[in-house]
This record gives sequence, C-alpha cells and structure tokens, in this order.
Amino acid sequence: MIIDRLIGRIRETAPIVVGLDPRLEQIPSYIKEGRTAPDAFFEFNKGIIDAVCDIVPAVKPQIAMYEQYGEKGRACYLRTIKYAQQKGLVALGDVKRGDIASTAEAYSAGHLGRLRASGKPPVRADFITVNPYLGLDSVSPYFADMQAHDKGIFVLVKTSNPGSRDIQDLILQNGKPLYEHVGGLVEKWGADFVGAEGYSAVGAVVGATHPEEAARLRKIMPHTFFLVPGYGAQGGSGKDLAGLWDGDKFGMIVNSSRGITGAYLSGEFKRDEKDFASAARDAAVEMKRDLEAFM
Amino acid sequence: MIIDRLIGRIRETAPIVVGLDPRLEQIPSYIKEGRTAPDAFFEFNKGIIDAVCDIVPAVKPQIAMYEQYGEKGRACYLRTIKYAQQKGLVALGDVKRGDIASTAEAYSAGHLGRLRASGKPPVRADFITVNPYLGLDSVSPYFADMQAHDKGIFVLVKTSNPGSRDIQDLILQNGKPLYEHVGGLVEKWGADFVGAEGYSAVGAVVGATHPEEAARLRKIMPHTFFLVPGYGAQGGSGKDLAGLWDGDKFGMIVNSSRGITGAYLSGEFKRDEKDFASAARDAAVEMKRDLEAFM
Repeated sequence: MIIDRLIGRIRETAPIVVGLDPRLEQIPSYIKEGRTAPDAFFEFNKGIIDAVCDIVPAVKPQIAMYEQYGEKGRACYLRTIKYAQQKGLVALGDVKRGDIASTAEAYSAGHLGRLRASGKPPVRADFITVNPYLGLDSVSPYFADMQAHDKGIFVLVKTSNPGSRDIQDLILQNGKPLYEHVGGLVEKWGADFVGAEGYSAVGAVVGATHPEEAARLRKIMPHTFFLVPGYGAQGGSGKDLAGLWDGDKFGMIVNSSRGITGAYLSGEFKRDEKDFASAARDAAVEMKRDLEAFM
Repeated sequence: MIIDRLIGRIRETAPIVVGLDPRLEQIPSYIKEGRTAPDAFFEFNKGIIDAVCDIVPAVKPQIAMYEQYGEKGRACYLRTIKYAQQKGLVALGDVKRGDIASTAEAYSAGHLGRLRASGKPPVRADFITVNPYLGLDSVSPYFADMQAHDKGIFVLVKTSNPGSRDIQDLILQNGKPLYEHVGGLVEKWGADFVGAEGYSAVGAVVGATHPEEAARLRKIMPHTFFLVPGYGAQGGSGKDLAGLWDGDKFGMIVNSSRGITGAYLSGEFKRDEKDFASAARDAAVEMKRDLEAFM
C-alpha cells in the first residue's frame, strides 16, 4: 500500500516532504532567461528533485502556484509529479479539493484515477489533500480510486495558518474544539485503509504551528498518518514536534517549502543562485538533523 | 459592482443560474461524434448558453468536470466562461478553493486576477466559490483582486449534500450550529463589499435542501447574497425557498444543473437529442414559474 511505501521510504531517508511551490521571484535569473514561467518552474523543480531525491522520500507540489499560469502551468504541475515519481519519490498533490459526491468523483478521476477517454496512462499524484467541510460524502468518493490505483489522501484537520482558529478552533457543545471532532471523523473514515505499518492511507493535515493541539490529535488518531505543514518559514521547529513521533513508524511527514527550495536566497545556506540545488540539499540535511534531535 | 450587475440582470430575466457540469453520458451522440470530450463539452455548453442567455442571468461551470480531462478540459472551462461573458452572462466559476494566504493569493491571481506574465488579457470568472475551513486569512487574499477587477466570491456556508451535516451542523458551545457561526463570519467579512443594491460581493452558498436552516441564515446575513444549489435533481423545490426572497432585490440566485442541461433526457421535457437546447430553455422557463409562484 502507498502509505506503507511512504513509511518505508521515510525509514530509508528522512521524515521530510519538500514543498514545490515555485514563485517567479524565487527562481534564479539564469533559469528564467528565455523560458516561460511554467518552463522555468519545471527546470527549477528538476534541479531541486535531482538534489534531494536520495535524502527525502517525497515532494508536494502546490497546484495553485501552477494553476495560475493556465494550461501550461497545469502541464508543469503534472510534469513535476511525473519526474518526481521517475526519481523514486512519492508525489503529494496539494490540491485541497472538497465538493459534493458527484463532483468529488470527477476530482477523484482527474487527480487519482484513470480516465477511460485518454490513450496513454495519465500522470497522477500518489496522494492528494482534501478539505472536509462538506462531510463524508465529499471524501468517500476518493475511496474507489484509492483502492483501485493504490492512492491515498490527506484530509485537512488543523491547518498551520493563523486563520485556522476562526473555524477549526471553535468549541463544540461537548467542550471539545472542532478540529478534534474532525480528527475523530478522519480516523474513522480511514479505518478500511490501514496498511501493514498500522497507518491508514487516509491521513490528516496537522500544522506544526500548534504543538499542543497536534499532540492531542496524535492521541485520538492512532492510525492516522500526519502531513505536517508549517515547519520553518511558518514558525514551527523540530522541538515543537518532539512529542509526536512514533518510533520507526514515524507517524508523520513534515513539509518544508521555501525553507528548502529558497535556502540559497538568505540565511545559513545563502549562496550564488547557480548553487540553489546544493543549498536546498544542505537545508534538507539540516532539517533532518533538527527533527532527529527531538525524535 | 459585479453584485449589482448580477441583481440587475436577475431583475431583467430570472433568479436562475444554469450549472454547466457536463458529463459524457449526458451529451447527445451527434455532438460527441468525431470530437474529443472537451470539444464536445464546449459544443454542448454553447448550445445551452445560446438557448438560455436571454432568459437567465448567469451560468456556473463546475471546474472538476473539466479538470478531469487535463489541460484541454481546463481550456474548455475557460472557453465556456469566455463565451458566456460574450453573450452577456455573469460567469460563476465553481472551484471551491480554500488554502493558506500565500496559496490563496495564487488562486486569486489565477481565477480572478490578471497575471502580468501573460500577453493578452486572461479569461476570468466573475465570481468563484471559496471554502471557509481555513478561516479569514484564506478568504481575504481574494479581496484585492475583487476590488481591482470588480469580481466577487461565494463562500460555502451550508451546502446541499447530505454529508453537510457531518461538520456544518455540529452544535457549538453557544448552542448554535456551526454553519450559523460561519454565516455570521461571512456577513462580517463582506462588510466592505456591499454594493448599491445592499448586497455584498462576498456571497454565501446555502443549499435549497435545508429550507429551515436557510431561513435562519437569511435573517442573520442581511447583506449576503445567496448562491443556492440543490434545486431540482437534488430535491429542493420552489416551495422550499418561499421564505427566502427579498422583493426586487431577490437576495439569492438558484442553481440548476442537470435539471436544465439534461432536461431532454427524461421527464416533462424529454425529447430527441437534437432538441437538447430547446428542452433546456423550456426547463428554465418552468423553473422560473416554479420559483415565482412562491416569491
């Protein structure tokens, strides 16, 4: 199962997923020269993937960054996923879709499934992120493609942004915050997808910026693997995640985007733009050290 | 402002938005013959738009149906929006995006804004739908493009699907359901975008399948225009919406997708596939009659 493969790859490398959220202003000028934005994004992503594919298990392209450049941007998103998979990486498509059943089926076909209409096998992420606000019938339509094509999802539970408090932190009648209730639902929804390592292919997004909340979620979601955004640029550190690890099953994978891909621009790993890839690799090695110090 | 233009167009025609969610099995075979799926979708959409553009104010393509066909599907989504706008219709892009601020900015640029990189002016929907689970900082990034390009958003509050009860109906500590709290937030978030007709360009999605809940939301959201899915195929009727109208300001626009675009396939307006467009027109006229009977 894909979740077992992810955990196995983490064991061989590090519990780190590199977020590929390219912005023009972060791309070296020699890469941008003579290239369209989507082509420059792909060249940059390729450089990052080549530099880290032996030391991290996964990458996570954020589709918004590509989608804004229209059809060519979207093609770049898929090329990035394909290239990462060719290099042995697990590809997490950060699409955060959420819609009623008939629509979710179409999203599932487009992001996880295999469309009958197309000739050659389409490029598909290994996991996608999903928004739970519309409830179970907006999440369950992904299950058939997960089963048929060995895919997984990560459902938003407690996100890393400050605004996550507006709705996710609301206190319910039973005295518990909404995100805990959602966490309980996700644990239940994933029950049929638990793999050999004890974790489900239905995972949860839980931000590194809320260490105490994450620790409570860890307890009530014993079979749910966490995708953890918010490390680094957003403020979360290895220390914040100290209580969340689950031995050699890890229990989570921590995302860093700008902290790795933009490492050459400033700070400890600042260097010439030609060396963006080696800076990214060094930043990933340092992140692994920071995480392991608190495991 | 776009919300005033929408209300003005409703006044001239009907409070109906036609959902353009094409599925291959609903497209007449003579249209599919010799065409790719996205090209068939566009021909079909064009036929529907031509048939209804003088009796409805707006269309709402659901991006999932296009996105599943890759870049060409996505191009068809944009062609549909462009054609609808050329025909004087307001285009609602049903994309239900929701993400942290930096990502929401990219979605805003891609769906409402104007990307500097592109040569000719890009095709953009007039409104898009947005998911509130990540809070205000996932919604406010759209405000700048709304202001700059006269666009609007509809934020999910209470959706029409059965699963909407799983999270949206949870009772908060103060005894009120979550969706009412979200409704209050949306009313507040939209305060700076209220137009001449008294409604904000920050609207709300409120399902026709929950008439009592919708009536309560109407009271606590006096400046929020509703986009109402769930009429027809999903079970909602004109009678269910009786208490929600706001005189010649209407206060809402009701969506019908399959009930109009698939009218030729069965029921009252069943006819030969060559006449799918006239069946759609007749179904829209009948829907207007049903809604007006309870206004």
